[in-house]
Amino acid sequence: MDEITVHSPATVANVVCGFDCLGFALSEPFDVMTLRKIEQKTIRIKHHDDFGLPTHPGKNVAGAVLGSILDNIDADFGFDIEITKRIKPGSGIGSSAASAAGAAVAANILLGDRFSKSALVEFARNGEAVACGSRIADNVSACIFGGFTLVRATEPVADVISLDHPTLFAAVIHPQIEIKTADARAVMPREFPLTTAVRQWGNVGALVAGLAKGDYDLIARSLEDFVAEPYRKNLIPHYDELKTAGLQAGALGGGISGSGPSVFMLARTREIAGNVVNAMNRVYDKTEIAVNCYVSDVEKNGVRIARDVIHGQ
Amino acid sequence: MDEITVHSPATVANVVCGFDCLGFALSEPFDVMTLRKIEQKTIRIKHHDDFGLPTHPGKNVAGAVLGSILDNIDADFGFDIEITKRIKPGSGIGSSAASAAGAAVAANILLGDRFSKSALVEFARNGEAVACGSRIADNVSACIFGGFTLVRATEPVADVISLDHPTLFAAVIHPQIEIKTADARAVMPREFPLTTAVRQWGNVGALVAGLAKGDYDLIARSLEDFVAEPYRKNLIPHYDELKTAGLQAGALGGGISGSGPSVFMLARTREIAGNVVNAMNRVYDKTEIAVNCYVSDVEKNGVRIARDVIHGQ
Repeated sequence: MDEITVHSPATVANVVCGFDCLGFALSEPFDVMTLRKIEQKTIRIKHHDDFGLPTHPGKNVAGAVLGSILDNIDADFGFDIEITKRIKPGSGIGSSAASAAGAAVAANILLGDRFSKSALVEFARNGEAVACGSRIADNVSACIFGGFTLVRATEPVADVISLDHPTLFAAVIHPQIEIKTADARAVMPREFPLTTAVRQWGNVGALVAGLAKGDYDLIARSLEDFVAEPYRKNLIPHYDELKTAGLQAGALGGGISGSGPSVFMLARTREIAGNVVNAMNRVYDKTEIAVNCYVSDVEKNGVRIARDVIHGQ
Repeated sequence: MDEITVHSPATVANVVCGFDCLGFALSEPFDVMTLRKIEQKTIRIKHHDDFGLPTHPGKNVAGAVLGSILDNIDADFGFDIEITKRIKPGSGIGSSAASAAGAAVAANILLGDRFSKSALVEFARNGEAVACGSRIADNVSACIFGGFTLVRATEPVADVISLDHPTLFAAVIHPQIEIKTADARAVMPREFPLTTAVRQWGNVGALVAGLAKGDYDLIARSLEDFVAEPYRKNLIPHYDELKTAGLQAGALGGGISGSGPSVFMLARTREIAGNVVNAMNRVYDKTEIAVNCYVSDVEKNGVRIARDVIHGQ
């Protein structure tokens, strides 16, 4: 096989209590990426979108990932990649991770499945480094493994654990505002009292147990964040109202996706997730802030081969 | 029924990464407690051991628990309790918790099972308050629920979660030294960098996932502690040697039980746990420090009715 088209999904990281370790994949939205093996030892990148992303291989997220894979195998060929981004950069739902993970998985398919998922995560982290200066692992892990993932540790390599979970749907609202990653980091304290940390990891353990048991009440009780939300919520207009509206519409709980500005909530059924997104939408109806909304199940497979998709549609 | 004898087991709290939230019950050692309903509105306490524990109901752990239960139901009767403590006070394996939890469970049996396990945890916490000045919940939760328990939160009441887990055995060594709880607290920092906290809760989530999946390798990888062990291990002579010996003998991992001085390690089989305890024992052989050793499975039931036990034996 010399050509493959994949769908690379959006992902939610920093899942409430699981700051810097818990993530999950969404079935909507996703990027479409077509990768071709070419004879020339080079990487060619073409974007079919309006985001103005760089196309120089060293400065492009997918390009950096493909470059690190070609280097690793000392390849005598190259890649041509066409990318239709549907996940808006800066949305907080893993736009750069989708580019990075999609490129890694697509390349692996064309290379005869020679790398493990864990190895692909390491390649994809090179793309995150291009996007944000840090080899963050949580979005690309969820994107490559699918479902709910826990990154236990990140050094020397990411230790990614696929978590068992019951049927869950996500309501995501993306207010069209910009939050700079630097600002999202700057508002958080660098140190926390041990008592606060204990409350946080009590919830992390309980959330993992609730997911494993399929205990929705326990999942709901565990969706508390004492570490990021109290500080970052001030960067998102009407955050408390959003959350109250979502909970009143039946959500189990939720919080800021990644470092924002998207906000997500989890629900037991697609119908409830629809009600939740509508309720959150109404909060912004009375403002000047435009939004994108998604109702999605938790995508089980992560990056997947697009069988019936004609490129660019 | 007006009389009941129960076995109340030792417990391990602060299970490595699970500081202040993760605990489990041991099948050995355990206290033996016989509780009788009496007509007089009073509490009589008799100890069949040499620990010189107080017998005034307000100053005795079991007495405080029984008092809070009698108050709660506005009882017109009292209790007589005989306690044979086999779990040495100050050992770090939940001696006071066994008294507190055993009294609560025994009283509940005589009262026709009117309280939930969660309610019994709250009564038992009153005993911990007598023992150590704080209504700590992790040992009494493991003692009452049995198996592995996670205390998600402690206020307004403890939210205790029973964790699924595979067959596991514990090797416990109790060096006969005294660690004052105040010292164990004083050596720990009150604040931690966010990066350290993230590593800790990555392990908490992974340990809960490993227990749920029965994935021994994941359990072993998750048994890391960046919060208590680096500071408290200096209070336990030869700690690093103990741990190295236990791991070399096949343990999955382990750490300080409670706030010490007991050290525990987890193993897949009873045979390995036996080898682990022998290996740890040899570390102290060359010293003047006397030890007690236990090899135990994880006790599934917590406090249990003693059917064939004659009191005091």
